Amino acid sequence: MSGATDHFVHENRDRLLEELEEFLRIPSISTLPEYADDVAKAAAFVAAKLNAAGLENVEVIPTQKHPLVYADWLHAPGKPTVLCYGHFDVQPADPLELWLTPPFEPTVRQGNIYARGAADDKGQMYSHIKAVEALRSTTGTLPLNLKFLIEGEEEIGGVSISKYVEEHPDKLKADIALVSDTSMYAPGLPTLNVGLRGLVYMEVEATGPSRDLHSGVYGGASPNPVFGLIELLNTVKDSKGKIKIKGFYDDVQPPSSDELDSWSKLPFKEKDFLREEVGSLKLTGEKGHTVLERVWSRPTFEVHGIAGGFTGAGSKTVIPSKAMAKVSFRLVPDQNPEQIIEEFRNHVAKKAPKGIKVEVRVLGASPGLMVDTNHPGIRVAAQAMEDVFGKRTVFTRSGGSIPIVGEFAKFIGIPTILMGFGLPDDGLHSPNEKYNLDNYYKGIMTVAHFFEKYGEVTEST
Amino acid sequence: MSGATDHFVHENRDRLLEELEEFLRIPSISTLPEYADDVAKAAAFVAAKLNAAGLENVEVIPTQKHPLVYADWLHAPGKPTVLCYGHFDVQPADPLELWLTPPFEPTVRQGNIYARGAADDKGQMYSHIKAVEALRSTTGTLPLNLKFLIEGEEEIGGVSISKYVEEHPDKLKADIALVSDTSMYAPGLPTLNVGLRGLVYMEVEATGPSRDLHSGVYGGASPNPVFGLIELLNTVKDSKGKIKIKGFYDDVQPPSSDELDSWSKLPFKEKDFLREEVGSLKLTGEKGHTVLERVWSRPTFEVHGIAGGFTGAGSKTVIPSKAMAKVSFRLVPDQNPEQIIEEFRNHVAKKAPKGIKVEVRVLGASPGLMVDTNHPGIRVAAQAMEDVFGKRTVFTRSGGSIPIVGEFAKFIGIPTILMGFGLPDDGLHSPNEKYNLDNYYKGIMTVAHFFEKYGEVTEST
Repeated sequence: MSGATDHFVHENRDRLLEELEEFLRIPSISTLPEYADDVAKAAAFVAAKLNAAGLENVEVIPTQKHPLVYADWLHAPGKPTVLCYGHFDVQPADPLELWLTPPFEPTVRQGNIYARGAADDKGQMYSHIKAVEALRSTTGTLPLNLKFLIEGEEEIGGVSISKYVEEHPDKLKADIALVSDTSMYAPGLPTLNVGLRGLVYMEVEATGPSRDLHSGVYGGASPNPVFGLIELLNTVKDSKGKIKIKGFYDDVQPPSSDELDSWSKLPFKEKDFLREEVGSLKLTGEKGHTVLERVWSRPTFEVHGIAGGFTGAGSKTVIPSKAMAKVSFRLVPDQNPEQIIEEFRNHVAKKAPKGIKVEVRVLGASPGLMVDTNHPGIRVAAQAMEDVFGKRTVFTRSGGSIPIVGEFAKFIGIPTILMGFGLPDDGLHSPNEKYNLDNYYKGIMTVAHFFEKYGEVTEST
Repeated sequence: MSGATDHFVHENRDRLLEELEEFLRIPSISTLPEYADDVAKAAAFVAAKLNAAGLENVEVIPTQKHPLVYADWLHAPGKPTVLCYGHFDVQPADPLELWLTPPFEPTVRQGNIYARGAADDKGQMYSHIKAVEALRSTTGTLPLNLKFLIEGEEEIGGVSISKYVEEHPDKLKADIALVSDTSMYAPGLPTLNVGLRGLVYMEVEATGPSRDLHSGVYGGASPNPVFGLIELLNTVKDSKGKIKIKGFYDDVQPPSSDELDSWSKLPFKEKDFLREEVGSLKLTGEKGHTVLERVWSRPTFEVHGIAGGFTGAGSKTVIPSKAMAKVSFRLVPDQNPEQIIEEFRNHVAKKAPKGIKVEVRVLGASPGLMVDTNHPGIRVAAQAMEDVFGKRTVFTRSGGSIPIVGEFAKFIGIPTILMGFGLPDDGLHSPNEKYNLDNYYKGIMTVAHFFEKYGEVTEST
């Protein structure tokens, strides 16, 4: 049977490419209001293709901003249900002058298709729909129950889908979610991402004098909120990356020895990471932890931005009234975001420099997540990738946060399979974004294999 | 004779006010290119008034930006020469909605004239010209030699005058300079400013990764230039305001016991200073030094502005490539700016955090200055103020820097009398700037007295 869907993909290579190109021609940039109609056009495209693939109850759901698309097929009683997620919106394409071919005129070069959204996420999400078509075309039916929920606001924060998931847990109920919006660790190396860091994102505002002051007249006696913010933030982390907040590490668990062992076998080269990816003088971070541990399984504190006072050309001798920083903690599983926020607030209350009023505003909080690698959905997914790519699937983590995964866990109570077919050099959000065509076809095959094999697991909602 | 010039001012009150109003109606905002013609108009006004007062060799001198005005009267051989300085440019007037009456429609209310530039510096500099007129009208001649050099770029850094002074030391040669661009310590309290802090102003740029990175993917291993800058700047000063750079305090001299004694008698109230001027939770600064010592006779380190990464609305999880801060040291007399710069560079080289490249750019450097209170010009100036205001003149310092004073010292080798007639609440650079009319008239009288009395001192260039 698997052979049949593989064969279907081979036979339909050209048409499958043409359909993807048609999808990629729609400039569905969610952040730019002038492209709102294109985002809607992409939603209609997805809805039509879901319908054509045999899914039912296809809905284009209006929201405060860009529409959601829902569809389902629920005719496999006693079989598991998979909730497929993806997004049809894309990042802006600028700087346009750096694109070798126009971002919305998809072009094939050396086995890759170049276009904005090729890997993130149109090419990947479309493979779910085409897997359904492959199965229906070759078997006349589907091996398990499916729900699709595809959004058009992923690149701008996913506010509408978050609200929708919270309000419709029963409608979306499933055994597991499937998301293809990540990358394989290396070309040809099937990868399942089973851990995500959480995130607490905050704005810290420091106020010194009630108005901007002349630093000559008042310097030496007036508190300076820029320096106050510097003093305060410097107390949060030491120069070795260790966070100095009371209780912060209490719930941090080390990765299992199995995980550490498998990470040590990944084709990771610290020198290349420094030179080709980061490009700084040196790497930094906690001693006694490898780079992969530091970015995947250790919590961090970062200052993402800071602003205050005069920063134009030339010099202005001001002691400003206010300064502000955007900061975050990346959290590992078991750390509680609410508790971390409280610990940070306590720390700030204790460490606020003399004369400086400090205000902390929380802009977002989500916990870290681990997927149980013994979950049947994960085991089957790993096997499906191995079948198609011919290599043992590796389990990695991501240092980033994917909010929808947390929302599926929180509101529907289900884990998520992060089955990505992207490659590390796809150039997401950058000029000349590409998607590897071999991965496009193998992605469709893999998802079809996964649906088939997971349908054989007796498990139902 | 003094009585005669006083009488002249009384007799001509209305005309002297009308002339000032005419001057204040010119919106000579030096920083806004669309007002360049108005700055030129103000220069022409000043030139015409110098000419009318009987000064000779009146020149409007073109520069790279706004013109300078020069004039002189050198027919008192054997008598001292005074170089009168002032500026006819003003700060922008915004926010306009906070002005009770329009900034360029001078309006008299309760003994004050309200207009942009009223105190800073049109009203004050014009008093020098009117003092000349008063003397010439009452005595037919002048009691000493005078040179005038008035600029139109004071509010934007004074680049052209600085160059001119450097290039024309012989033309500008005098015994002393007279500047009326400061304030009296309190209403009715004649004040001579005899000390200025110096300034070293620098831009510090920190670079981490070669491009902006995703804080989820790289956080924990990549250096962050915002945090690096925070760590670095935090090493420059401790929480009590003490600068932690090797050698920094080596040349710092305490004020004389006479100075300290006279400061302790000034009508200074720390509570009012905190509540009405600074408006912060508390004051800060070095222990063991009074507030006036901290702002007048102690060096400081300030961060005037800081910028880096994402600071818009919402959240963005970036590790930026670069961050930048504008910093300065205020210096006291005897500290050498060049040496301080070198010490700071050494400190940065030693303390730059791991993985962070730091670049220091010097934007300005001027030493602190003290005027010898036994200089005959200062003694006569103090006496002239006392004559007119009826109170003993106090000697104060300013925590700020007035670059032209340093340039007169450096290039012409002369001290400067800072004889200010402004008041602490004049609102310089703020909406509803005002100048006290009584001080306007008394300022003219005082300058005339000063010229007369200083002409009796036998001293020549």
